[in-house]
Amino acid sequence: MAHVWQELIADKKKRQRDAIPKDWLIDIPDGAVLDVTAVPERCGLFSNRELAITSTVDVTTLLRRLATGEWSSLEVTQAFYKRAIIAHQVVNCLTEIFIEKALARAAELDAQLKATGKTAGPLHGLPVSLKDQFSISGIETTMGYASWIGRHAKHNAPMVDILYECGAVPFVKTNLPQTLLWIETNNLIFGRTVNPANRTLTAGGSSGGECALIAMRGSPFGLGTDLGGSVRIPAAFNGLYGFKPSADRLPSHGVSSSLAGLHSVRSAVGPISASLDGIITFMRAAIGGKPWLKDPLVVPKAWNEEEYALVNHGAGKSLCFAIMWNDGVIAPHPPIVRALKMTKDALLAAGHRVIDWQPHQHLEIGNLINNIWRAGSGEELRTVTSTSGEPILASMGLDENTAGTSFFASGDGISSYDLWQLNKKLLDVRKQYLDLWQNSAEATGTGRPIDAIICPAAPCAAPPHGMNRYSNYTRVWNALDHVAAVFPVTKVNPIVDVKQPEHDFMSPLDKIYYEMYEPSTFLNAPVGLQIVGRTLEEEAVEALMSSVDLGHLTVFPWRKL
Amino acid sequence: MAHVWQELIADKKKRQRDAIPKDWLIDIPDGAVLDVTAVPERCGLFSNRELAITSTVDVTTLLRRLATGEWSSLEVTQAFYKRAIIAHQVVNCLTEIFIEKALARAAELDAQLKATGKTAGPLHGLPVSLKDQFSISGIETTMGYASWIGRHAKHNAPMVDILYECGAVPFVKTNLPQTLLWIETNNLIFGRTVNPANRTLTAGGSSGGECALIAMRGSPFGLGTDLGGSVRIPAAFNGLYGFKPSADRLPSHGVSSSLAGLHSVRSAVGPISASLDGIITFMRAAIGGKPWLKDPLVVPKAWNEEEYALVNHGAGKSLCFAIMWNDGVIAPHPPIVRALKMTKDALLAAGHRVIDWQPHQHLEIGNLINNIWRAGSGEELRTVTSTSGEPILASMGLDENTAGTSFFASGDGISSYDLWQLNKKLLDVRKQYLDLWQNSAEATGTGRPIDAIICPAAPCAAPPHGMNRYSNYTRVWNALDHVAAVFPVTKVNPIVDVKQPEHDFMSPLDKIYYEMYEPSTFLNAPVGLQIVGRTLEEEAVEALMSSVDLGHLTVFPWRKL
Repeated sequence: MAHVWQELIADKKKRQRDAIPKDWLIDIPDGAVLDVTAVPERCGLFSNRELAITSTVDVTTLLRRLATGEWSSLEVTQAFYKRAIIAHQVVNCLTEIFIEKALARAAELDAQLKATGKTAGPLHGLPVSLKDQFSISGIETTMGYASWIGRHAKHNAPMVDILYECGAVPFVKTNLPQTLLWIETNNLIFGRTVNPANRTLTAGGSSGGECALIAMRGSPFGLGTDLGGSVRIPAAFNGLYGFKPSADRLPSHGVSSSLAGLHSVRSAVGPISASLDGIITFMRAAIGGKPWLKDPLVVPKAWNEEEYALVNHGAGKSLCFAIMWNDGVIAPHPPIVRALKMTKDALLAAGHRVIDWQPHQHLEIGNLINNIWRAGSGEELRTVTSTSGEPILASMGLDENTAGTSFFASGDGISSYDLWQLNKKLLDVRKQYLDLWQNSAEATGTGRPIDAIICPAAPCAAPPHGMNRYSNYTRVWNALDHVAAVFPVTKVNPIVDVKQPEHDFMSPLDKIYYEMYEPSTFLNAPVGLQIVGRTLEEEAVEALMSSVDLGHLTVFPWRKL
Repeated sequence: MAHVWQELIADKKKRQRDAIPKDWLIDIPDGAVLDVTAVPERCGLFSNRELAITSTVDVTTLLRRLATGEWSSLEVTQAFYKRAIIAHQVVNCLTEIFIEKALARAAELDAQLKATGKTAGPLHGLPVSLKDQFSISGIETTMGYASWIGRHAKHNAPMVDILYECGAVPFVKTNLPQTLLWIETNNLIFGRTVNPANRTLTAGGSSGGECALIAMRGSPFGLGTDLGGSVRIPAAFNGLYGFKPSADRLPSHGVSSSLAGLHSVRSAVGPISASLDGIITFMRAAIGGKPWLKDPLVVPKAWNEEEYALVNHGAGKSLCFAIMWNDGVIAPHPPIVRALKMTKDALLAAGHRVIDWQPHQHLEIGNLINNIWRAGSGEELRTVTSTSGEPILASMGLDENTAGTSFFASGDGISSYDLWQLNKKLLDVRKQYLDLWQNSAEATGTGRPIDAIICPAAPCAAPPHGMNRYSNYTRVWNALDHVAAVFPVTKVNPIVDVKQPEHDFMSPLDKIYYEMYEPSTFLNAPVGLQIVGRTLEEEAVEALMSSVDLGHLTVFPWRKL
């Protein structure tokens, strides 16, 4: 006899299958085909115009054509919808598909543009995908829990309202790991999302569905959430830009999450795009929507063009970047080190300064976060799953392991008082880090502290399923509430990224990661890096990222696509 | 045999007595003398010049004379120091007295001004008093705990560093209640602070020492902290201005507190002054000190002159204020209602609009705060006091009750998970309140939401010792993280503020408060009101308070002193 949760899942899966037009079902390539990014172009279902639309990486170009009416929102939405459906069949990236709602909305926008000559807002007509957590009125938010099947949102999340006000067209929601507290993407309802560049590798997580979809060009732009790297890790693993603002810059209200009610380390909503312009255009639009009037936790700070012009960073001339080559816990793999060196060379070539950054208490911060999250995560995850009786995944490995339970689902938790003591310790480290950042002015030669830190987003490119175990390169910045973003740099190159001789291992995980690396394992995997700025310095980090990125575009024309 | 804590306290008290110059000991007036505010002027210890200095209420006047050298910082500090010592003898307001450090600092500033012609900063030479919690290098921070006697700070709190950088001269620290979680002021080390206007009444709390000192003119300006009304309630009870910014606008790092590590409702540092100019001058100076470079929790928002010019409030013309006449839990006493009516009349006379504000879930918010604080307060307070074995006060009554324990010191607390559920509920209410505020635009007639709420700071003027039991008129705004401030309006007038007939009581506390009121009990007690603006809208609330205040100055010239 099937359990309640299995019945719920069977029904939900059927409903998802029914949402996929039969005409668009394709033959799935054999498992030997690792890279599936070209499947949409080759499946024969797309017109040239549809391919032109969906392969337009630059979001501002898309928006310009939508605003002039050269492309209608209806055809753009329809094209990305079709491509999302194809993408889903090869990488399994979608959760909710609400195309009728989206097409009706797109038609409305087209009519409005035709009638008035005016766009509805800065994102007029743009299809947008959303990680499953975002509440959209009338749509389910399961977050991969069988227990939450049938949970239809009564209201839009404020972030969704702002998207609509900006003229965007939400059209699908995307996959994530059960509990959210994994950096891969698999759950009992929707299953595993794989990496489009190499299906034997993880798409990363928790915004893995979103990043795989965008990497397949099944969406021009999307939103994820990032509590410990959940935007940045999958963005890096998929060759995309992923941006994590400070927790209080974009509205999280109405975005279902794990650890809700925990205030000391909080999740941030963050944009994901194949184009840096997409990130910047969205941030300007979203903040222009005055999210602080819709979410009480959002800082009432308007988009600041002066900060974007780097008024606090010498107007962007002669910047000083600090590179953190490793975090003192796990040495990055050869492709990551090469990406760091490429970035350093490009920055120096562009006339910027580069110094080294020593990690300060990164292991300790990682342990503090573990303990802060586990203060109540076990009780939460057991409470949520208890209503359907669904098991909690114990790993992200291919065996879909449900024996035992996950790290964050285990344990009795701690008292509020004990949590407060951990929060105090974290605050002390944050103060130390702030002082270090300030004191770096002595070493930059610019008269001001470092402008940003460049560091790995992870010690590796996307590893095989079940092997992505370390998120502390990203979540340290959540703990410090710094702005942090990921930009694509290169791909794993088996010729040059050869395995290095053993080094003195800094930790047991360092050894595990060292042993994991073989160039052939990571075939075709994209390599991204992270740029880190100060708290609530979103505008400046976007501009600084442009500086870093422009350097790369010069050096690596392949990135232009 | 004396307990450890009694020995510690005896030694600490002796050290405090020794810090008081013998020449300045005065005869304490008989208990029949209720109002002791004139004691300094009448004690014969002050020169006319010292009286002129210490009776200068307007902080900007003091600063101007200090900046021109008309008055030296040394003589100003010396004069306020002497007056603080006299004040202390009649209202018991001081904890730490570090006059040598202050006078040396003042002399340095004088020399610097003489040598360079330049002030050290916007608060050049100004003596400043600080609630005991602020860490000053080398000075004890006992917070009224016997267990913390001998706890000398190793560093200045960032807020103290900024005061020094601005040219201020910290010279004394002031009294507070044991545990901080009271709205009166009494502890086992330093004892009870009484109200200068009527010693049978409480000075309020927890910044009661600070407010009593300033009301006695023993300090021109001071800093308190406000977790639930701890700046605003004693400011209202002492006829002063008290300003509570959003929790993240001024730096709290290095400020000892209760419930440290709790992030969902946090304490704010706030200025207290007899002059509104004092508040505004300080806020501009403190924020000018870029506190976000010293404290990781401070929002990086520079002082915004446009917001101070009410750019978001129709440039200050035709404002619309909402008056909340009561909070649905306790009906304010007649003097408070009269103050509200006076304020309404003055605002209407000045050409502003006034509408009514209905409280939304105020009782529920109060209960949520109680439960959130008690999540860990019991364990914290018992842990702190255990090292000396000191008892925890069970009331603020005159019997110095140590039988039993206080509300916040009792109970086992709750798990982190249960705390998160309370935080989620609070966040839901915050969202509802934000929506209500936004929707008020329909009722204001200005095309924008209400500009501010005017409401009681407490349902009563300063009540007799041990009877101040209700802080929800203030702490609702801490829970919502709104900017809230107190301004003086009038005094209890037994002729007009007669007891009213019984009304339908809204709660058991409403009945208790009704029964407490007799005009003669509150003789001479000041009456202040509260003005409430939006989160991180400090500049605007200061300007709005000026609008409200100017109206009153016209109507009530006695306030000009």
